[in-house]
Amino acid sequence: MSLLIDNIGLLYTGDPEREELTGAAVVIQDERIAWVGEPGKAPETDERHDAEGRAVIPGFVDSHAHLVFAGDRTAEFNARMSGQSYTAGGIRTTVAATRAASEEALGTRMRALVEEMRAQGTTTVEIKSGYGLTVDDEARALRLARQVTEETTYLGAHVVPQGIEADDYVRLVTGDMLAACAPYAKWVDVFCERGAFDGDQTREILTAGTKAGLLPRVHANQLTQGPGVRIAVELGAASADHCTHLSDADVEALASSNTVATLLPGAEFSTRSPYPDARRLIDAGATVAIATDCNPGSSFTSSMAFCIALAVREMRMTPLEAIRAATYGGARALRRDDIGMIRAGNRADLVVLDAPSYVHLAYRPGVPMIRRVFSS
Amino acid sequence: MSLLIDNIGLLYTGDPEREELTGAAVVIQDERIAWVGEPGKAPETDERHDAEGRAVIPGFVDSHAHLVFAGDRTAEFNARMSGQSYTAGGIRTTVAATRAASEEALGTRMRALVEEMRAQGTTTVEIKSGYGLTVDDEARALRLARQVTEETTYLGAHVVPQGIEADDYVRLVTGDMLAACAPYAKWVDVFCERGAFDGDQTREILTAGTKAGLLPRVHANQLTQGPGVRIAVELGAASADHCTHLSDADVEALASSNTVATLLPGAEFSTRSPYPDARRLIDAGATVAIATDCNPGSSFTSSMAFCIALAVREMRMTPLEAIRAATYGGARALRRDDIGMIRAGNRADLVVLDAPSYVHLAYRPGVPMIRRVFSS
Ligand SMILES: [Zn+2]
Ligand SMILES: [Zn+2]
Repeated sequence: MSLLIDNIGLLYTGDPEREELTGAAVVIQDERIAWVGEPGKAPETDERHDAEGRAVIPGFVDSHAHLVFAGDRTAEFNARMSGQSYTAGGIRTTVAATRAASEEALGTRMRALVEEMRAQGTTTVEIKSGYGLTVDDEARALRLARQVTEETTYLGAHVVPQGIEADDYVRLVTGDMLAACAPYAKWVDVFCERGAFDGDQTREILTAGTKAGLLPRVHANQLTQGPGVRIAVELGAASADHCTHLSDADVEALASSNTVATLLPGAEFSTRSPYPDARRLIDAGATVAIATDCNPGSSFTSSMAFCIALAVREMRMTPLEAIRAATYGGARALRRDDIGMIRAGNRADLVVLDAPSYVHLAYRPGVPMIRRVFSS
Repeated sequence: MSLLIDNIGLLYTGDPEREELTGAAVVIQDERIAWVGEPGKAPETDERHDAEGRAVIPGFVDSHAHLVFAGDRTAEFNARMSGQSYTAGGIRTTVAATRAASEEALGTRMRALVEEMRAQGTTTVEIKSGYGLTVDDEARALRLARQVTEETTYLGAHVVPQGIEADDYVRLVTGDMLAACAPYAKWVDVFCERGAFDGDQTREILTAGTKAGLLPRVHANQLTQGPGVRIAVELGAASADHCTHLSDADVEALASSNTVATLLPGAEFSTRSPYPDARRLIDAGATVAIATDCNPGSSFTSSMAFCIALAVREMRMTPLEAIRAATYGGARALRRDDIGMIRAGNRADLVVLDAPSYVHLAYRPGVPMIRRVFSS
């Protein structure tokens, strides 16, 4: 099957050689982008989609999400935002509910969130484990995630669960749990933070994961200026995620490395925390991605458009930098060359917006603007 | 036709006597709410809608919007958010485009925005003139607005147009323009601000409008601590809108009056301005409304849900205060008793959310969450 999409308002390709095109057309063939160019020169196709002047962008690449969970933390959110104290177990609340849930219930909820994301223009999503924290529960989460995405991340090192010493838990995470999870995971991730895992533990877990064939990424510098970013760069991680509290050395390390700085402004929005300094990272030359961090505790949005609006308003990214970070940036954070860009050969993941330009994603915040999603 | 809505998760009625109900049901008959209570006790109906555990809320009342306009200010927004200078004409850009547009084009665009709002749960919208600024163009805008809402506002005093002295323009606004517009308007409004209309002019225009049978409301204290709120309270205006820069006396005046403080956080979001202090107003006892201020210059969102999320994150309203402000508050700002609340006798304007509670409007920012809209 081949399809011509023409009458496009502004085409954001993400391809540095011709990042924005007006009056262009795109041809899709068999799940791939076959051609991009002037409408009159398009090869013949079986079908045609008239974009009627609407903008077309690559499908969003959401490179950071926690979608395998059960339980309800609405009351915790409500209390936090109402200025009331709430003796919440945080991540551990979700862990207990997730362990208690059936595989079917977890899968149904995960698929509903993936579908919700797709309806909002996200055509690639990374999914982490991390609410199981036992050998079986972590492996179960990754088996489920693998049903819906190639981008599965082993996050046994999300937090040290109750009833086990930290050292023993690290031994488990780097031993039996890793062995059980590695077959279903592409990535290994650690929440490197005070109260979670320190620098030495992070290095040990990522190194063990790498030896098991996984690729490293890190929850780094979310709450404090910890060693996460330094370790991510040192180990050649694809991405350091959050990057909210960075030293000058951290910024420099990111800028002179292949490690993407993935910013998650939904988390700062929903926890009333200061936003990361995207300008400092971009101006230094770092590659920046935006992702939702979709999870029931600290960022329950699944909307990349919302994160783009926040990136522009709160992190002082330009609309162009924000769309780039939500597509190309996400693809780089997943070390993928076949997505995040509309160019011949890439996967046919693209979105028709209900607006003439991608700028409207920030200009019209909160307004549903996804007209049509093409997903390979 | 009568309809039973049952199996409701959390029902937010807005009725102070029973603001939140679980396990309740609602009966609609002939465009009115006929009954609210326990499902087992519901009167018989022709049809049934199973909410499947979803939350139900009153339709949003968006009491401040500028929907009659033409032209495109995307480039201006893009430049502003990209830190570039842009010699924009501001409101005057839109005025020129609006005057040049056909009535049909204006109507089509207005109706598309009203439909976009309705799909996002807004069942009542106020619409202002203010981009015509001639007798004919203002009257045309209000005639159009009247086609889609009872809540039409004469805002000839939006800004002094080019080519006319301020005094002459005030004479026009209070004279021929008022006479031409009054038949189509319920409200009279003035942009009381440095660079627009001062206190004396505001008082004069509102008083003239009142004499012509219109009810006053004011764009007050958006950019500076001006006299807008004071005048609004003095003249018994239904609402003082924006309320971003308030003195203690302003807060007290609002709290001890019948004038609603309508907050428009979309404007602060899209202009990177400090947000109004909702807590100060609520704690003092003022009635607060939230509205979108939907307009192409300073706030192009049409999403009440987005404004609720901002109200919670940025203005420190609780989720309960925010939903109340977006429904009951808006109704008070329009002096309407028949909307903004789910109780017997009110209009059958209600929304089924794709979530178990209204808290999710803030908890899941940016996520489209409107499952079904019932609108009388
Ligand atoms: Zn995370
Ligand atoms: Zn306004």
